[in-house]
Amino acid sequence: MNKPIIGITMGDPAGIGTEIIGKAFTDKMIYEICNPVLIGDKNAIDDGIRIAGNTIKTRSIENVSDANFEFGVIDVLDLKNVDMKEMKYGKVSAMCGKASGEYIEKAVDLALKKEINAITTCPIHKDSFQSGGYKYPGHTEMLAQLTNTEKFTMMLTHGDFRTIHVSTHVSLKEACERVKKDRILHVIKLANEGCKALGIKEPRIAVAGLNPHAGEYDYRDPEGSPGGIFGDEEHKEIIPAVKAAQELGINAIGPIPGDTVYPQSLKGGKFDIVVSMFHDQGHIPMKLKGFVYDADTKDFGSINGVNTTIGMPIIRTSVDHGTAFGKAGKGTANCDSLKQALQSAVRLAKSGYYDNGFQA
Amino acid sequence: MNKPIIGITMGDPAGIGTEIIGKAFTDKMIYEICNPVLIGDKNAIDDGIRIAGNTIKTRSIENVSDANFEFGVIDVLDLKNVDMKEMKYGKVSAMCGKASGEYIEKAVDLALKKEINAITTCPIHKDSFQSGGYKYPGHTEMLAQLTNTEKFTMMLTHGDFRTIHVSTHVSLKEACERVKKDRILHVIKLANEGCKALGIKEPRIAVAGLNPHAGEYDYRDPEGSPGGIFGDEEHKEIIPAVKAAQELGINAIGPIPGDTVYPQSLKGGKFDIVVSMFHDQGHIPMKLKGFVYDADTKDFGSINGVNTTIGMPIIRTSVDHGTAFGKAGKGTANCDSLKQALQSAVRLAKSGYYDNGFQA
Repeated sequence: MNKPIIGITMGDPAGIGTEIIGKAFTDKMIYEICNPVLIGDKNAIDDGIRIAGNTIKTRSIENVSDANFEFGVIDVLDLKNVDMKEMKYGKVSAMCGKASGEYIEKAVDLALKKEINAITTCPIHKDSFQSGGYKYPGHTEMLAQLTNTEKFTMMLTHGDFRTIHVSTHVSLKEACERVKKDRILHVIKLANEGCKALGIKEPRIAVAGLNPHAGEYDYRDPEGSPGGIFGDEEHKEIIPAVKAAQELGINAIGPIPGDTVYPQSLKGGKFDIVVSMFHDQGHIPMKLKGFVYDADTKDFGSINGVNTTIGMPIIRTSVDHGTAFGKAGKGTANCDSLKQALQSAVRLAKSGYYDNGFQA
Repeated sequence: MNKPIIGITMGDPAGIGTEIIGKAFTDKMIYEICNPVLIGDKNAIDDGIRIAGNTIKTRSIENVSDANFEFGVIDVLDLKNVDMKEMKYGKVSAMCGKASGEYIEKAVDLALKKEINAITTCPIHKDSFQSGGYKYPGHTEMLAQLTNTEKFTMMLTHGDFRTIHVSTHVSLKEACERVKKDRILHVIKLANEGCKALGIKEPRIAVAGLNPHAGEYDYRDPEGSPGGIFGDEEHKEIIPAVKAAQELGINAIGPIPGDTVYPQSLKGGKFDIVVSMFHDQGHIPMKLKGFVYDADTKDFGSINGVNTTIGMPIIRTSVDHGTAFGKAGKGTANCDSLKQALQSAVRLAKSGYYDNGFQA
């Protein structure tokens, strides 16, 4: 069976990206599900493998067509843009920021040409990125601009639990202001699109309420529960948005109170995705699901989650953690999120939803 | 060893209260940890035992001093205020509301006289309660008035995870307005009091942030993270409240971002209690912890949680669910929350924090 080609960008060389690559690529599963090609710097990856304490090899290639996709020898589209004598783990530098931007440019170019079928990205560091000349607020904004995408959002996934946000990095007061019918409807549509891209035929979409108990509105008994006791956004904005989505044939229901919708989705499997009204509403259950104790570092971390950018013409998944400069170069990083991000990229690449050049 | 006497109010006869009593009292654990006395109606409890499908007995007593506290025969301070021919499960009625109010009055009277050492309450139904002549917004407000308590709050507990809220049943916009230094400081003090009442000597109190990432403020590196990027409540209100609490000798830290503080507390055990800034912030993790699939009802429910009223001169714990009129009389109710509430009442009664008449 044909396997999709996934381009993995190495991310910032001074972060944990190369180490998690050095760990993840010792898992044969990766080669069983896809043909992976690294877009990065061979020397940096070699050092990541050393830090990971593994013995797999790397080889430089110039074109995707040169790749062998053989377990044990990572094919690296080698941009040769990291001077390992200069590179310091955990330190901001223009060299590393510039390098990480170049991997993204290369990956988008290959995805648009359909030489690769999807992109999975390792983390960049915003300060290095900006020092390196990339004046974007973040990874996703750069990808959007390179692909001429205007409307996009992030879908967070952890196993079968998915969520998408009406707003993220704004104050909670501002988040309340952004709970508007048109915006919610747009996010419901993106939720539908994101699930369909994963191959879910009729996505079951739950829309969270904003206020406690969704303002006492009960979507199962709309006539009997006028609600509005604790705030009116459910009535003025969320209910009209859900109705408009339903009229478009989207299987959306809600508003469902925040404290019951996530248990029903996360533990109950009742929904394919939850539309969250603000950052912490969706992130608390997501982080709770992925949160584990790490005996090595004697600390806690969120692992296994995947970010997927919805709305772009190309497929992009990402680990859900940062460069973790504090632990870079120490060998204690966890590669589960990268593996999950690769699995998601494969699922998206094979679903037939995208015109991504993949032939099953 | 001496055991505390716990008075259990039966709650609304038309709800699941009598059934969960009929189930819980078949567990010998209850008599091992305390001397329980039911404050209710003998006939109603007998019917609850029948619905529960159990065979334990009840006996009417007039005074606490008449109780035998023997497993297998529930001592009932029998107020004889339910006409079982009139009572209909799942129906609002003035008779049931009046009866449930009378149990509370009796329990508070006994607790103030120290004839019982703590109260555990089964749920009342607000509409019946009001029809029955009790014009309180809820259970807790009535208890507060009967004990001349002005400042009180609910502490939610599930196992070792505890939280307490700066606001609960108000709109999210209003909740943002209530994030004020004095109010937060007061809730931190109540959190400290609640944990101490449970016998925790130096409670570790985490204070959640309001905005995403706590506005990028890092309490571990306050100088290096001025924050304020996503809202300024952390700087203007929360940080001053935490500092004021610390100056009082309270072991409080924060603000910690909402999406990391609950995992650290719930899965990491790093804190004894989390001060939540608004309803859903604390209720999402609490409900996620207690949420289970019920094979009998083929539905989901939150169980095992306990509400404790903090700030009163008497001890009161409560199940964290309602009368569940929809399933009353059917035999499918879960008694875990009642058992947990009894265990919490015992712990509070024995901690020595309250002047409740208990002699160890």
